[in-house]
Amino acid sequence: MKKHNFSAGPSILPQEVINQASKAIIELDKIGLSLIEISHRSKEFISIMEEATELVLKITGLENKGYKAIFVQGGASLQFLMTAYNLLEKKAAYINTGTWSVKAIKEAKILGDVIEVSSSKDKNFNYIPKDYIIPNDADYLHITTNNTIFGTQYKSFPDTPVSLIADMSSDIFSRKIDYSNFDLFYAGAQKNMGTAGVTLVVIKESILNKVTRNVPSMLNYKSYINAGSMSNTPPVFAVYTTLLNLRWIESQGGLEELDKRNKNKAELLYDEVDRNSCFSGFAAKEDRSYMNVIFTLIDDNLSTDFNNAWEDNYIVGLKGHRSVGGYRASIYNALPIESIELLIKCMQQFEEKFK
Amino acid sequence: MKKHNFSAGPSILPQEVINQASKAIIELDKIGLSLIEISHRSKEFISIMEEATELVLKITGLENKGYKAIFVQGGASLQFLMTAYNLLEKKAAYINTGTWSVKAIKEAKILGDVIEVSSSKDKNFNYIPKDYIIPNDADYLHITTNNTIFGTQYKSFPDTPVSLIADMSSDIFSRKIDYSNFDLFYAGAQKNMGTAGVTLVVIKESILNKVTRNVPSMLNYKSYINAGSMSNTPPVFAVYTTLLNLRWIESQGGLEELDKRNKNKAELLYDEVDRNSCFSGFAAKEDRSYMNVIFTLIDDNLSTDFNNAWEDNYIVGLKGHRSVGGYRASIYNALPIESIELLIKCMQQFEEKFK
Repeated sequence: MKKHNFSAGPSILPQEVINQASKAIIELDKIGLSLIEISHRSKEFISIMEEATELVLKITGLENKGYKAIFVQGGASLQFLMTAYNLLEKKAAYINTGTWSVKAIKEAKILGDVIEVSSSKDKNFNYIPKDYIIPNDADYLHITTNNTIFGTQYKSFPDTPVSLIADMSSDIFSRKIDYSNFDLFYAGAQKNMGTAGVTLVVIKESILNKVTRNVPSMLNYKSYINAGSMSNTPPVFAVYTTLLNLRWIESQGGLEELDKRNKNKAELLYDEVDRNSCFSGFAAKEDRSYMNVIFTLIDDNLSTDFNNAWEDNYIVGLKGHRSVGGYRASIYNALPIESIELLIKCMQQFEEKFK
Repeated sequence: MKKHNFSAGPSILPQEVINQASKAIIELDKIGLSLIEISHRSKEFISIMEEATELVLKITGLENKGYKAIFVQGGASLQFLMTAYNLLEKKAAYINTGTWSVKAIKEAKILGDVIEVSSSKDKNFNYIPKDYIIPNDADYLHITTNNTIFGTQYKSFPDTPVSLIADMSSDIFSRKIDYSNFDLFYAGAQKNMGTAGVTLVVIKESILNKVTRNVPSMLNYKSYINAGSMSNTPPVFAVYTTLLNLRWIESQGGLEELDKRNKNKAELLYDEVDRNSCFSGFAAKEDRSYMNVIFTLIDDNLSTDFNNAWEDNYIVGLKGHRSVGGYRASIYNALPIESIELLIKCMQQFEEKFK
């Protein structure tokens, strides 16, 4: 029996994506070979890479606007370094909204000055800072649009005099936003995009070639753009799974439809967190993430009982991150509303029993 | 109908590995979830990572000898940079045996002085250099054990006063050698190890921590060792496929048995290349690779006819690399002897018809 998967990432993917990916491992499109046995220079794989790249720009509304989409390995963590390597000449501005921002700042500091223009550390990152001054002479401003661990999310984006750069690992493709606000955004695949092992980077090409350092080939955005993400062997399976997922996003009605569904799912769950006398929400209400719903038990002595309640209902992945404790319901694109309804039912029955 | 796959990489994998990988995409070990949907911090995935790491050391005979095995993203190409980042303090020695050595040298030059102690460029890299002096004060000597493009392979390894570092991307796990000759070796997975998207690095831990530069987290071997290759989300599917392949290697009798099979396959094919009046071998005989057999047509006007001959027999991936031309038969671990026999039959029938 398939479980209800609230994992934070790697996380649930659409069942049809999983089925198609599994089939392609045996044989890709009746070519007599497995997806993972063919050359990345074959016409079959080149067409996979090209379609994935085109779909990214189409879905984000960035076609013909000077942007390029590339696929890189190493996760968002390598992007913490690559963004700085390619763009940080003297100093860069960062807003610190938690663990992933902290890591991005740490890597950037190796290559230049970092100005932390604001931080929500004073309240264990339970909100998104709103007041800050961005230096006009910074090379860029870096933000983390959704904070998986703390369950906060930017609902509007900084009005900035410099390039806006974003780590969108946990909310890319989950909502209808104006992606042209950003000169560069990146995302590890393992939430809303595909399977772990590939990272999407979308770049406004005109911001490149401004740093004076010698950027190593595998860290250089330009070399990925020039080689169509194939200067060396790309992570074939992860790119293919991403393509399947991008096709699925289109088939569902694109970001407009997913935006509606995700808001609806999140609001149902937050309403229950607020209503239920046994639980309390973690993030500031106006900054609550539509992807990661963080809540805690008011009486921590009941945690074994609540854990048993959801585990008995075939729910997995609900344990909170150690930095916050409590529970984290990650409710990405592929999570069906039925899983949300089941979790709410568990919470209600739990309240009945223990209030 | 399954084709005979002579691709250079990504390349043929054992059919049982492909079947198991496909099945795990649907559901891993009856846990009610797909392999690609579970947390990398789950007990299931931690056990996959640990078993893979242990099997690498067991198969290479490096258990309890101070070595660590880690899994990294970015391919061998990122290792060209990482080896230098972690080990090159002042100067390093490189032997240049072709395209991949050239790329390794290029990245290392960003971080320090590179001494090219020898090169086979004078003969389009068709041999392995044998005479050279390795500076006593070099930080390491770097070699490429098998040259996929030029079909050459080290049959014995340099006797060196400094650490020996090797790119083994295209011949790792293909033969019985003394892996303790090397202080560090690495390999992209997509030949004898698994699917594209993961790179194995095996390191003698005592050689680390000698450079004074600040090594970024995602380029730092130490951070991978300390976090069991999970400082960030690893490429889950590629690691799992590698584990399946390592289990397969063990089940076949380990490197001793694969060494025998691979030599036998290679010798059969080289014997035909030498015997057949229509073809000629590319690499110097004593340096011929047991993994990539490079040969050319003596009369290039017959190339369409020969291409038709093998294509009609459901053979794929035989076209040579543009640097050499002609043909390249990549005959990795998983290629069955039947595919070799079929290719030899094609070559014999071709000779009958056109000599």
